[in-house]
Amino acid sequence: MTVTGFKAAAFAAGLRYSGRFDMGLIAADREAAWAGVFTQSVCRAAPVVWSKERAARGRGRAILVNAGQSNAQTGRLGEEHCRISAETLGGLLNVSSDQVMLASTGIIGQPINIEALTKVLPPLAAALSGAPQGLEDFAQAILTTDTRAKTAAAEIEVGGRRAAIWGCAKGSGMIAPNMATMLGFMLTDVAIAPELLQELLREGAELSFNRVTIDGDTSTNDSLMVMASGESGLAVEGGEALAAFKKAFFGLMKSLAVQIARDGEGATKLVTIRVRGAATETEARLAARTAAESPLVKTAFYGGDANWGRLCMAIGRSGAQFDPYAVDIDLDDVPWIRRGVDNNREEEATAVMKKNEYVVDINLNAGAGEYEVITCDLSHEYVSINGSYRS
Amino acid sequence: MTVTGFKAAAFAAGLRYSGRFDMGLIAADREAAWAGVFTQSVCRAAPVVWSKERAARGRGRAILVNAGQSNAQTGRLGEEHCRISAETLGGLLNVSSDQVMLASTGIIGQPINIEALTKVLPPLAAALSGAPQGLEDFAQAILTTDTRAKTAAAEIEVGGRRAAIWGCAKGSGMIAPNMATMLGFMLTDVAIAPELLQELLREGAELSFNRVTIDGDTSTNDSLMVMASGESGLAVEGGEALAAFKKAFFGLMKSLAVQIARDGEGATKLVTIRVRGAATETEARLAARTAAESPLVKTAFYGGDANWGRLCMAIGRSGAQFDPYAVDIDLDDVPWIRRGVDNNREEEATAVMKKNEYVVDINLNAGAGEYEVITCDLSHEYVSINGSYRS
Repeated sequence: MTVTGFKAAAFAAGLRYSGRFDMGLIAADREAAWAGVFTQSVCRAAPVVWSKERAARGRGRAILVNAGQSNAQTGRLGEEHCRISAETLGGLLNVSSDQVMLASTGIIGQPINIEALTKVLPPLAAALSGAPQGLEDFAQAILTTDTRAKTAAAEIEVGGRRAAIWGCAKGSGMIAPNMATMLGFMLTDVAIAPELLQELLREGAELSFNRVTIDGDTSTNDSLMVMASGESGLAVEGGEALAAFKKAFFGLMKSLAVQIARDGEGATKLVTIRVRGAATETEARLAARTAAESPLVKTAFYGGDANWGRLCMAIGRSGAQFDPYAVDIDLDDVPWIRRGVDNNREEEATAVMKKNEYVVDINLNAGAGEYEVITCDLSHEYVSINGSYRS
Repeated sequence: MTVTGFKAAAFAAGLRYSGRFDMGLIAADREAAWAGVFTQSVCRAAPVVWSKERAARGRGRAILVNAGQSNAQTGRLGEEHCRISAETLGGLLNVSSDQVMLASTGIIGQPINIEALTKVLPPLAAALSGAPQGLEDFAQAILTTDTRAKTAAAEIEVGGRRAAIWGCAKGSGMIAPNMATMLGFMLTDVAIAPELLQELLREGAELSFNRVTIDGDTSTNDSLMVMASGESGLAVEGGEALAAFKKAFFGLMKSLAVQIARDGEGATKLVTIRVRGAATETEARLAARTAAESPLVKTAFYGGDANWGRLCMAIGRSGAQFDPYAVDIDLDDVPWIRRGVDNNREEEATAVMKKNEYVVDINLNAGAGEYEVITCDLSHEYVSINGSYRS
């Protein structure tokens, strides 16, 4: 079942990459409810500033994305390029420029090649299609160093009415809490008020994308947007419909977040770090994030080295308060550390660390605070990718 | 001129490394003033707990160091090993175990091989020598993944009296503010009260070691210790003597800190990141540290990629508040970024980034806060070293 009320398309504009889609467009058949959450960086890219203002209006028609240049730190020129893009596209779709949200991803500080972009808008708009292929192409067009497209879909049925949700996202470096360099686009055909949609998007992002960290870095361009067409006729206001929608919507966001972590730059492992028993949830978050972002922990994951001391080092410096000799750490189902000291499970722990995915469960035994972060390892490939990203 | 009143020695005990010094000893001829600053991690290694208590006594006789096992997260066994080490050495030197400070560096969670260690103490004590060679051997014995020994020496002359200062340190991963995995040992023959010595050590560490960051990680074992024999007869209490001593003492600590950064694990570049014009010093520190610890910034340094957008990304997410279009960034003397946008100096900036050492000067133009951090790049070699550190 395809999400109804939208058309999508992609085009190879040659903005930076050649021979692949690098521009994507989603258009709603009619005015749709929309919402967005954006990077919390002080240095927000021009399209972030543009879209945040438009998202606040609650309703709109189209989302235009380009990959290759971020249009961040480009000053008035960047603002001007946003205006030109939205106005040109608005003219083609016969909607106001305020009904167009924009997102860009790529190198910071490089202005968009606006001539190339505007030249491509007419064929891009002409290619809009309701077929699933349009959305698949869109999901390809937003990628940068990602090695594969990330999409997720679900449907719900409440009181005999069915509705669909679809989403796609890109990573894959500069990913960290606070909506790191991450673009995500969610579509649904439920009927929902913009305010509720915004609330659900924020809550869902906090439980998914904001719990993924690749390298602790946060970008200037992070954007997560959602549009709801209402075409399914299923109204989401409360009760069973809200519960069903929320569960599916959050589930898709979590799926996309996991896909981003699995495809982190150079990643070879997907690791969930769960901190339990912290004095507070804030301290649990500090401990989990510090461990997930520690270069020494991440290189140990990469090397498959069951070096639990590095986890102690990381949580010890995190700011969380606990008794180091009360800490228990499990690696999947291996009781790895007990009361802060080695439980002599080197062989079993090493076997777990050879797997592609595993869970590090840290119990600080200091309270009831919990937090979970999804991360990946730090590999030679990460350094290769980022040592020469612009070339 | 050699610092007087101390003897030193090193020994190859085979605790982890073979064919090289891995235990070092410094002994004062008579009771000396001493002081120490230690890791702020919640997970403090047993020798840190031991030495912090003894340092507070203000006077002591010896410092014993081993490289290979950190004796961190080793529970009661670790405490017991500290007691045995200090008592055995104390017996050999005819001093109380409370007059012995201990430091360990190496793998977290591994107990010290206490039989091997105690067996070596008699020949180690017998090898104590006042010749400069003893100190040079000591500086070798404290190394782990360091590629070279780090020492510094100075002398001062006040009112016709001369005195000497000597120091050594080790890095070289897990280095970050808060006394990251760093061992430092300073010796001087001035006469100084323990309280003043402690105060100067703390202030000097804040201006030197605490401003070095390799990977943002902080260890369980960081320790910086100083002993003052008084043998020179130069009393440091105030006035000209205090000014001269402070200047030389701080200078040596800064020199050792720079040597640590230059020898960071896998480091190929030494980069000073200076943030000026922040609203407060705290915000300047946040911005400088975030930039210095960002994997994306550090890989750009490694690749020699003049990707200034990553600096904007890092300071933008740091928590510092500023107008992104007020920021000026210089790379050595190249006016790289002006008012937040590219100043078209790609060629000159790339030339600077090919150098082994350079300064990134970021002016936020938002106030008078300043902070400077010394760091290095993130290389393939860092990943290689830390992917299999224990093997």
